[in-house]
Amino acid sequence: MHALKITRAEDFPEWYQAIVREADMAELSPTRGCMIIKPWGYGIWERIQAELDRRIKESGHDNYYFPLLIPMGFIAKEADHVEGFAKEMAVVTHHRLKAVDGVLKPDPEAELAEPFIIRPTSETIIGDAFSRWVKSYRDLPLKLNQWANVMRWEMRTRMFLRTAEFLWQEGHTAHVDEADAMDETMLALEIYRSFSEDYLAMPVVAGEKPENERFPGAEKTFSIEAMMQDGKALQAGTSHYLGTHFSEAQNIRYQDKEGGQTLAHTTSWGVSTRLIGGVIMTHGDDDGLRTPPAIAPRQIVIVPMLRGKPEDEALKDYCAALAQELGALTAFGERVRAFVDTKDAKPADKRWDWVRRGAPIICEIGPRDAAGGQVSFIKRIALREGEKIKTHTLARADFVAAVQGLLDETQSALYAEAKARLEANISGEFNTFADLEAYFGADEDGGGFKGWARVSWSRPTGAALDKVVERLKALKLTIRNAPLGQPANYKPCIFTGAAGVEEILIARAY
Amino acid sequence: MHALKITRAEDFPEWYQAIVREADMAELSPTRGCMIIKPWGYGIWERIQAELDRRIKESGHDNYYFPLLIPMGFIAKEADHVEGFAKEMAVVTHHRLKAVDGVLKPDPEAELAEPFIIRPTSETIIGDAFSRWVKSYRDLPLKLNQWANVMRWEMRTRMFLRTAEFLWQEGHTAHVDEADAMDETMLALEIYRSFSEDYLAMPVVAGEKPENERFPGAEKTFSIEAMMQDGKALQAGTSHYLGTHFSEAQNIRYQDKEGGQTLAHTTSWGVSTRLIGGVIMTHGDDDGLRTPPAIAPRQIVIVPMLRGKPEDEALKDYCAALAQELGALTAFGERVRAFVDTKDAKPADKRWDWVRRGAPIICEIGPRDAAGGQVSFIKRIALREGEKIKTHTLARADFVAAVQGLLDETQSALYAEAKARLEANISGEFNTFADLEAYFGADEDGGGFKGWARVSWSRPTGAALDKVVERLKALKLTIRNAPLGQPANYKPCIFTGAAGVEEILIARAY
Repeated sequence: MHALKITRAEDFPEWYQAIVREADMAELSPTRGCMIIKPWGYGIWERIQAELDRRIKESGHDNYYFPLLIPMGFIAKEADHVEGFAKEMAVVTHHRLKAVDGVLKPDPEAELAEPFIIRPTSETIIGDAFSRWVKSYRDLPLKLNQWANVMRWEMRTRMFLRTAEFLWQEGHTAHVDEADAMDETMLALEIYRSFSEDYLAMPVVAGEKPENERFPGAEKTFSIEAMMQDGKALQAGTSHYLGTHFSEAQNIRYQDKEGGQTLAHTTSWGVSTRLIGGVIMTHGDDDGLRTPPAIAPRQIVIVPMLRGKPEDEALKDYCAALAQELGALTAFGERVRAFVDTKDAKPADKRWDWVRRGAPIICEIGPRDAAGGQVSFIKRIALREGEKIKTHTLARADFVAAVQGLLDETQSALYAEAKARLEANISGEFNTFADLEAYFGADEDGGGFKGWARVSWSRPTGAALDKVVERLKALKLTIRNAPLGQPANYKPCIFTGAAGVEEILIARAY
Repeated sequence: MHALKITRAEDFPEWYQAIVREADMAELSPTRGCMIIKPWGYGIWERIQAELDRRIKESGHDNYYFPLLIPMGFIAKEADHVEGFAKEMAVVTHHRLKAVDGVLKPDPEAELAEPFIIRPTSETIIGDAFSRWVKSYRDLPLKLNQWANVMRWEMRTRMFLRTAEFLWQEGHTAHVDEADAMDETMLALEIYRSFSEDYLAMPVVAGEKPENERFPGAEKTFSIEAMMQDGKALQAGTSHYLGTHFSEAQNIRYQDKEGGQTLAHTTSWGVSTRLIGGVIMTHGDDDGLRTPPAIAPRQIVIVPMLRGKPEDEALKDYCAALAQELGALTAFGERVRAFVDTKDAKPADKRWDWVRRGAPIICEIGPRDAAGGQVSFIKRIALREGEKIKTHTLARADFVAAVQGLLDETQSALYAEAKARLEANISGEFNTFADLEAYFGADEDGGGFKGWARVSWSRPTGAALDKVVERLKALKLTIRNAPLGQPANYKPCIFTGAAGVEEILIARAY
């Protein structure tokens, strides 16, 4: 018996939805394709924000805030330059509601001369500011970041992974030349890689996206890709070198040292609440989420075994004192987050709520523990021994002394488990397209665990690349990226047999 | 000569805009009525968020995130119940742009069956969730908070004070009864009062708004009011007891202990980026902002007097080591925020940039300081001695030892100055309406410093209140609030001569 009604093996997508629901992370809202993020989900996002923000600032970026609404003309300017520009976006056309015969409607007299778009991303409005702010080479590099909500009118949504509105961070920078902008692009990618691995305990492969997967208008797009427990890849963050495309469209020019007017080179990069979906599918098990301690909103949850009797008060005091003592410790560079759950509910229900949320350490303190100065606890990553829940008991002082180690161990164990899965399931044994077909084609419905293929190719472009993409699509496959750290020699191209020039990862993906 | 081109005395509104611009806090954007918040402004907001968030969580509230877009039907439901409902809001009517003859337009085929509103506030969508979440008295109180952007289609905007889009925090809670909801309403008000005074160094008067100034649908509205340097009041935060109005509209009912179905009592409360406008008009002087150290994004700025010579490196090292040493100290419960400004610009220009931004302590370190192990610095709150800039010099160790004290002193001095101004400019000497006319009417154009009047009234309602409001309006006056801590006895009503029942503050206001 597990704490979720459905297991990963039974139905992975349903299991995912069950965690989101049962761990009380988010729920669907009455606004189409948008979610309500609840405290356990939002608390994880707050941890992500705090640490990523620290790293972004430390690497020389300042936070700004730009308007939510973008004049349609900005998008039109962009659309001229960018083929394949996505046009599904929320359009604001009126600025007033009016009751007409008792029915509320957009007031026809309040129609906007120029509609606004809810930002799907902010390149255009930030580029417009750059064109005003960048005058001289002394103004460069200009490195900024924004934490914001954005909106894309997605047709098929899945909580955290793809929602119409989502929360993200978007970095935007301008530089004197390609070399400096490329350094920035790789710096952002490395921030994402190290953050994912150190902090989310989610190992990733960083690399360059193929031409067909580039951000519209980008010269180069890089990504980090994580392997979910169903074998699918999740693109968890992207970093774009935009060349001078946006500078041309928006006239971002600077006076160089020789006095000439030169186009700046720009970058952009972002990660979003999608990371939370990645964390669930990397670390969840059939009992719920196992939240990495670094991002757990509550790292140690203390459940007093209250019985509605006068002795409860002493028990609550014991638990409160324990929480306070734990809160004075530090882990992952911050105060330990300990919490006493005194909610009016059965202790056993509370235990299972915290198991499903994946609090790393759950203490269950009864009157005997309090009287004996002990702490009884379970470790979320080692919940059971056989069929039974494994409870540990330590003297209070010993428990307090052990806590930092327990949190560190949990973080490391989650990373190690995910890293082993990633490494065991990337195969370089595919030499021909037929090999891919034999492995992936056997499973027409796309179910069942399939790892990733690391193959050589000749890096076709244009129509030849389109053909490759089509052949892969028939197998429900996509090219994820060309990992950084390429080998010295290549096998022949898996698609054409021509000389290989690059290794790429091929996988099913979210 | 001052660092701003315009003084408070010359033109207070222009002086305000000059600070926003010259301290690089924000600028107007191409999106009507919306601003771009720049690092010094946004950094202050980040400090406000961090500390207020801590206080909100500590008092038992969890953070959630609700959708940006609200179905129009929710607003319609609300509009039925609430007279005076503001209908100026951004309406999303389409979900796609399409190029028609090369011109981008909202695609007529992508018109939404039901439009969405960009949230002006979230009572309706959060109330809808409450109606699903609240089942039993055990689910109450339900206390949540949200950090979000909201939008109101304001016609006349002023940066930070009134913008179409702004950033805020909105608390929403549900309770079993009026007593519990009123406790919450007053708790939120007290959080705002103490936060404003301790953290923003901005003294306020907390009290209840008169009937005509209540939030639409509220039973009672409370505010904190701060006095700006032109004498005007700024409503800096509000807390509303909503009674059962929203519960009725949205069917928020719980099973009580007797098994009956009972309407919950709700509250809401918020503060916004408007607080930053209050900080500017409370603490700015003719040299720019004086940022209270608790919210200064950089508390100590170190400007190395670089000359483009080889000795510069040693100077930079000295400054970096000093910043590191300072960064290990704590002030206001956090690490001291020290920053070395190595930008490619003249040291004198950099000094004045930081004076205008109001960094509390500005160190100017030349080769002689570095060689002698000294620190030369200016204090932003005591910039000059006579006409000259007052520079202090201390041995480095002494400076480091003094820094926490200097920051504390600065915070206290800014508060004391503002508190003295507030206290000196609230007068209880008005006994008749003619007294008000004599003082406020003498100055038809609304210019010049005018304090606040604290007067007794009989608390008229309905049409009688409307008449009072009209009379005050003719003098450009409004009722701010009835301060908490009322006296035991009242003078006669200033408007009617009837027995007084309450003292209220009357002032010009933003």
